Amino acid sequence: MGEPAGVGGEIALKCWLRRGEGVPPFVLVDDPERLAELAWRLDLDVPVRTVESPERAPALFAEALPVLACPLGLKIVPGKPDPAGAGAVRRSIEAAVALVQAGRALAVVTNPIQKRTLYQAGFPFPGHTEFLAELAGIAGRSVMMLACDELRVVPVTGHVSLRRALDELTADAVVDVAAIAEAALRRDFGIARPRLAVAGLNPHAGEGGSLGPEEEEVIRPALRRLEERGIAAVGPLPPDTMFAAHLRGSYDAAVCMYHDQALIPIKAIDFDGAVNVTLGLPFVRTSPDHGTALDIAGSGRASERSLLAALHMAAAMARRRAGSAVAAGQPA
Amino acid sequence: MGEPAGVGGEIALKCWLRRGEGVPPFVLVDDPERLAELAWRLDLDVPVRTVESPERAPALFAEALPVLACPLGLKIVPGKPDPAGAGAVRRSIEAAVALVQAGRALAVVTNPIQKRTLYQAGFPFPGHTEFLAELAGIAGRSVMMLACDELRVVPVTGHVSLRRALDELTADAVVDVAAIAEAALRRDFGIARPRLAVAGLNPHAGEGGSLGPEEEEVIRPALRRLEERGIAAVGPLPPDTMFAAHLRGSYDAAVCMYHDQALIPIKAIDFDGAVNVTLGLPFVRTSPDHGTALDIAGSGRASERSLLAALHMAAAMARRRAGSAVAAGQPA
Repeated sequence: MGEPAGVGGEIALKCWLRRGEGVPPFVLVDDPERLAELAWRLDLDVPVRTVESPERAPALFAEALPVLACPLGLKIVPGKPDPAGAGAVRRSIEAAVALVQAGRALAVVTNPIQKRTLYQAGFPFPGHTEFLAELAGIAGRSVMMLACDELRVVPVTGHVSLRRALDELTADAVVDVAAIAEAALRRDFGIARPRLAVAGLNPHAGEGGSLGPEEEEVIRPALRRLEERGIAAVGPLPPDTMFAAHLRGSYDAAVCMYHDQALIPIKAIDFDGAVNVTLGLPFVRTSPDHGTALDIAGSGRASERSLLAALHMAAAMARRRAGSAVAAGQPA
Repeated sequence: MGEPAGVGGEIALKCWLRRGEGVPPFVLVDDPERLAELAWRLDLDVPVRTVESPERAPALFAEALPVLACPLGLKIVPGKPDPAGAGAVRRSIEAAVALVQAGRALAVVTNPIQKRTLYQAGFPFPGHTEFLAELAGIAGRSVMMLACDELRVVPVTGHVSLRRALDELTADAVVDVAAIAEAALRRDFGIARPRLAVAGLNPHAGEGGSLGPEEEEVIRPALRRLEERGIAAVGPLPPDTMFAAHLRGSYDAAVCMYHDQALIPIKAIDFDGAVNVTLGLPFVRTSPDHGTALDIAGSGRASERSLLAALHMAAAMARRRAGSAVAAGQPA
């Protein structure tokens, strides 16, 4: 569902309308009434059909949008998040995770949530990803990857101020994130020998220490440890040039030192087509690479491209995981 | 000339070869012998012609590459910068500036220099821009702008470590840089009412202070002062989205808080076509947006696109300055 006052419902309806183009069948965990009303208001020809179990979804998908009911119990106005809806938002995430954990769905694709509204309702997690990690029962680090056709990026530090990101940047963090990314590229993206490009932190990657010490003191030691583990990683690369068109094809993922170093280039290159992938969870999870877009919610102007890309990527990742499990003699 | 061991000579020769495509006539301040040898070695059909004065260049340009002699006095091997050549590199910059100051040329276009080699020879300036400011006798701030067809960016802080950039970021600096950029957009780019987009520093522009204080404490106060001065500036904008294709057309220049925030997006969008423009000098100065590329120097593989764009941009800026001077009743 995601934030019901945002564009999540609209883009999900629009994805279903493109089902003839090979969209992987999905089941929405959402409020069927609000979806039907939204389809009517936006003049989208989408028959919404409540199902009791996700196993019904694939056969139904060609003729109707299958929905597992997660009732809001109130009417949400587009653009106006209401903390009273937060319980349903949370339950829809829990229900989706329960389905993949039970093997009844192959992947979780999440629509954007409005963090402030969830906080107001007492949601105790910084965001989606941390909540999913909790539901998955994992203690270790989960890693955000953004991926489009031309580029994959993985930030080492997260949603913190730039100054705090500098303080939090350690060789351990670089090694952990790079190793998780490399493992995911093998398992979920089918790349036999992933090549990582590790960014510098400072302009020109520090110019041998004259523009900052972190490349020598943090990043190079991390690169040595990655090499010892047999992980192919080059760097520290000058951040301003490594995302240029003629260079970004030379690696499978860029390991970035801070949030915007990763997100600026990928959104400059492909805003609508980028997908957010959570690595390090026991199940496949993707999401569109945009927010709730409250300013255009309800207007019919939201682009479904990123959610569509998230659905396709989730399906491809799930197929590869299933394939490896079969190859390893486990049930798919 | 720029660094004679770099790609500067090669890309200048290649620009002259495209003279039929409306390349503005230019005169090289360089060593004629090394240029003739380079043309021969790279099999480029460029007749190099030494001239005594730049006034000869326009008439000659169709049939030969005009060069004002600035002899190196030694043979430089491509890819191997030699501090013994630094004196000539410096003299070529001084000569070019003297020509524009005397009104004998309209603009200075500089080829990339190798800073380390110049430092070894006792060059006391951090880079080209500071040397040009010294030659121009200006005490104030000069500002680097990078410009391509789709985007112009102006970093507030410069070639310093990211941590130092955080420390150096002040409202005064944001206001100064934004005001210089706005004035240049009017005078040199012919934009009657420039619109500036001012970036945040932190992820999501600080999310109201929860991801860092600088947006509230530094950038918003700067925006209020810009508004008082009648400068159209919006911000602080989330850095990761403001460079997206559908947003970058909504402003004439992005005022960025640090080097890579400005350079990552423009090089991701258009690596070869971006031009470096120095704002705040009393004369027009542009340069290609790349370095000496020692690794490919002498191979013939260097792209002249950025130097070509720098020549075109310098000519357009000089025409506008001359036009405004004429309009203001001054000699062009």
